[in-house]
Amino acid sequence: MATSTGRDLSDPSFRASVIELCGALAYGELVGFFMIVHDAETAPRVGDRIALARLAAHELEQYERLAGRIEELGADPEVAMQPFAESFDDWHRRTPPSSWLEGLMKVYAGHALAEDFYREISAYVDADTRALVVEVMQEGGHVEFARQTLREAIANDPAAGGRLALFGRRLIGEALSQAQRVAAERDAITALLVDDGSGHGADLAELTQIFARLTQAHTDRMESLGLSA
Amino acid sequence: MATSTGRDLSDPSFRASVIELCGALAYGELVGFFMIVHDAETAPRVGDRIALARLAAHELEQYERLAGRIEELGADPEVAMQPFAESFDDWHRRTPPSSWLEGLMKVYAGHALAEDFYREISAYVDADTRALVVEVMQEGGHVEFARQTLREAIANDPAAGGRLALFGRRLIGEALSQAQRVAAERDAITALLVDDGSGHGADLAELTQIFARLTQAHTDRMESLGLSA
Repeated sequence: MATSTGRDLSDPSFRASVIELCGALAYGELVGFFMIVHDAETAPRVGDRIALARLAAHELEQYERLAGRIEELGADPEVAMQPFAESFDDWHRRTPPSSWLEGLMKVYAGHALAEDFYREISAYVDADTRALVVEVMQEGGHVEFARQTLREAIANDPAAGGRLALFGRRLIGEALSQAQRVAAERDAITALLVDDGSGHGADLAELTQIFARLTQAHTDRMESLGLSA
Repeated sequence: MATSTGRDLSDPSFRASVIELCGALAYGELVGFFMIVHDAETAPRVGDRIALARLAAHELEQYERLAGRIEELGADPEVAMQPFAESFDDWHRRTPPSSWLEGLMKVYAGHALAEDFYREISAYVDADTRALVVEVMQEGGHVEFARQTLREAIANDPAAGGRLALFGRRLIGEALSQAQRVAAERDAITALLVDDGSGHGADLAELTQIFARLTQAHTDRMESLGLSA
């Protein structure tokens, strides 16, 4: 696999790409914080509200780490996040949960999808950013309660499972569509991931495989809940 | 001042009172977390959203400490909080901010009022709980940005200041009214604070002074913002 491990941050265009990527990840964590808190408020049990509040606080910590990295790289986190606000906000607007379980599904599937994406892109950044990305990726079982709660709900109510499967498909579909939009609009991030002839980044076949792996992992997760994805 | 330092946790009614008090404080922090996140979402600037998200996460940490203490005392935090949910929720329902600045005022004044209350009651609990209450009380400048933002807004727009002064009066009025309700309904907490002839707790004159001090501190804070309270 052609990775960018040979590149370093003294290359201004590589540095700009890493900053953009960290900006995208940071905005994702920040908006995740607010989304999870929203969802927590619809939880029927106080215990679930608390578990989701903890998960949200964890997202905020991850945001802080990524924002710190952006500053280390000499950029302003707010400026670095700004180009990605619309895509993330649109994803959230286009996938409104219509129930507490759909909200939980969004937390669970969204979190896992982000984690898979982090794993894929970690190969294309500098060593320090990679170490951070790997660290941020370790969700440490914070979403396990979401998986458990969903599994139980689906086992007890197959009709709810059908609706959740539909919602899961919408989540991944809209995520891929926003990812394509970011790829089309943001050359710096695309340059990081896609080999433009320099020998760094993935070629088109690898890029297709990345998207295929992300989709497959999502499918596997839905099936592990007892859903057909 | 007659304090309860002479009492210890082997006295079951004293222990029950301390658990109740921690339950009230814990619920206040938990509901504060959700309230502050709500307010953050109305912030016009991303920087303010982030500052409020941090403040909310800090409330959640304080909740965790208090819930931990309740468990150390052999009780279930959810059970200990339950009797106070209605009063806190009512306070929030009866003081809805109608603007971003009113929300910020609620965060600032509510936080400070809670801190003053913590300071007053710390005299009446056991040494370990007192140490925790004092620690939780240290807000460490988290609300300073709220004070600054309010001061600037009021200096720039005296009409906004008039509305905020009214809202500040409503906040303290509703807080005192909910405090009286808790005092009337929850004998265990009242027993902690009020001397029933045992020589522990405040007598009526001291209790009146506590409420007078809380109100005076609120007035001073409003004036430090340039408002007549």
